[in-house]
Amino acid sequence: MQTVPPPAIRRLIGVGVGPGDPTLTTIKAARALAEATVVLVPATEASGDGPGRAELIVAEVAPGARIRRIPFSMADRRGISEKRKEAWLTSAAAAVEEFDGGATVVAFATVGDPSVYSTFSYLAAHVVAQRPGTEVEVIPGITAMQALAAESRTPLVEGQEVLALVPVTAGLDRLRELLGAADTVVAYKGGRRLPEVVGALREADRDAVLGVNVSLESQRLVALAELADDEAAPYFSTVLSAPRRTTAGGAL
Amino acid sequence: MQTVPPPAIRRLIGVGVGPGDPTLTTIKAARALAEATVVLVPATEASGDGPGRAELIVAEVAPGARIRRIPFSMADRRGISEKRKEAWLTSAAAAVEEFDGGATVVAFATVGDPSVYSTFSYLAAHVVAQRPGTEVEVIPGITAMQALAAESRTPLVEGQEVLALVPVTAGLDRLRELLGAADTVVAYKGGRRLPEVVGALREADRDAVLGVNVSLESQRLVALAELADDEAAPYFSTVLSAPRRTTAGGAL
Repeated sequence: MQTVPPPAIRRLIGVGVGPGDPTLTTIKAARALAEATVVLVPATEASGDGPGRAELIVAEVAPGARIRRIPFSMADRRGISEKRKEAWLTSAAAAVEEFDGGATVVAFATVGDPSVYSTFSYLAAHVVAQRPGTEVEVIPGITAMQALAAESRTPLVEGQEVLALVPVTAGLDRLRELLGAADTVVAYKGGRRLPEVVGALREADRDAVLGVNVSLESQRLVALAELADDEAAPYFSTVLSAPRRTTAGGAL
Repeated sequence: MQTVPPPAIRRLIGVGVGPGDPTLTTIKAARALAEATVVLVPATEASGDGPGRAELIVAEVAPGARIRRIPFSMADRRGISEKRKEAWLTSAAAAVEEFDGGATVVAFATVGDPSVYSTFSYLAAHVVAQRPGTEVEVIPGITAMQALAAESRTPLVEGQEVLALVPVTAGLDRLRELLGAADTVVAYKGGRRLPEVVGALREADRDAVLGVNVSLESQRLVALAELADDEAAPYFSTVLSAPRRTTAGGAL
């Protein structure tokens, strides 16, 4: 009599690898990357033929990991673009291929946190639809917002303050609205519209700090007062505007 | 001829140790805790004579660390209370005492992230005022908000969505205002006013998930629909209300 083997357990893990400094990865993330059968990493246009930011981190914290690059477009200025959709469909197809080839754990490494402006949930939905029973797990990671707060020693929120995280892709009016509604505002993905972001911050009589490549050696931190009107910054820049605090610890 | 020794380098590090699961601590944080001369940990009323949450994490990720407990009050329902002020003054005095006793690196371990509703900036300002030249560093940590998003597999923000983090101590009107202004709202420190928070969420026709002790074995996740009207939860509970998403990956 033939025995039917138990269904293979397949796990798909979205792993946040933090903002750039490999040591800002969590112990849990490093272990998951080391134990995965394969680690999918986004390969963006920006990194050309070389490793992207996620891959550099994975290579550092899980040196033995088998890495597979997925062509990825970060150009989502108009929301979830066709290119981005294509990228997550390609990721999903790669994950399914790996599972069908015998992989038990497929990790998808994402810069920052998979729960914050990542496409991991789309990818996971597609994989689960194609291979029902796949277990999905998410391991959080340090975001650029947190790294910028730490490096500039600007508390994000204290006491009863409210924090808002706004993608500049949502529009300048949305940014202005939140500058009025929240005590601290963090603007993501605004590098290419930096002069307009700076204008909105000055209009609202705000202090702020710009962070580029935060936590990496190439890190650049610039206070709003020192920013030129036509300052340029890469797409993935972070602007943190905290209230002028009057409490004892407000100014470090 | 007598030579004057160079001034001692004193470093004060605010170390985020994450939400509870010790493996959610970053590699950088674990190293800083292991290398510190002494690690100050808050000892709250809740933990009685036993170790608090931060101490349990430190003991796990940096087993050889010298730990010093600081009596701490988490009861800041009325903002920055006298008790809390007393606690950070006690922390500052302990840090100064350690530096004067020869410590070169004093770490202060904080659950979550030192930049998010922590008193580390107050503590640091007091220490620097008393011992000028002390270098201050902040190492970010995974917040309860991120752990809840990961555990409940609810993306915090996708595409052009705006995220707001609101402490319920700021008032129910403030919470209602942000429920109108942001796509995703995370409410912190609302356990004791949970029925009112639930009421505001239902009024706004929102989905939500409540998280208690997220990432620990005692973790409890409850969907809004399953919450009793008079549901009780501890002070440090997290409520995450994300939009009903229509995109492919919205529902995992």
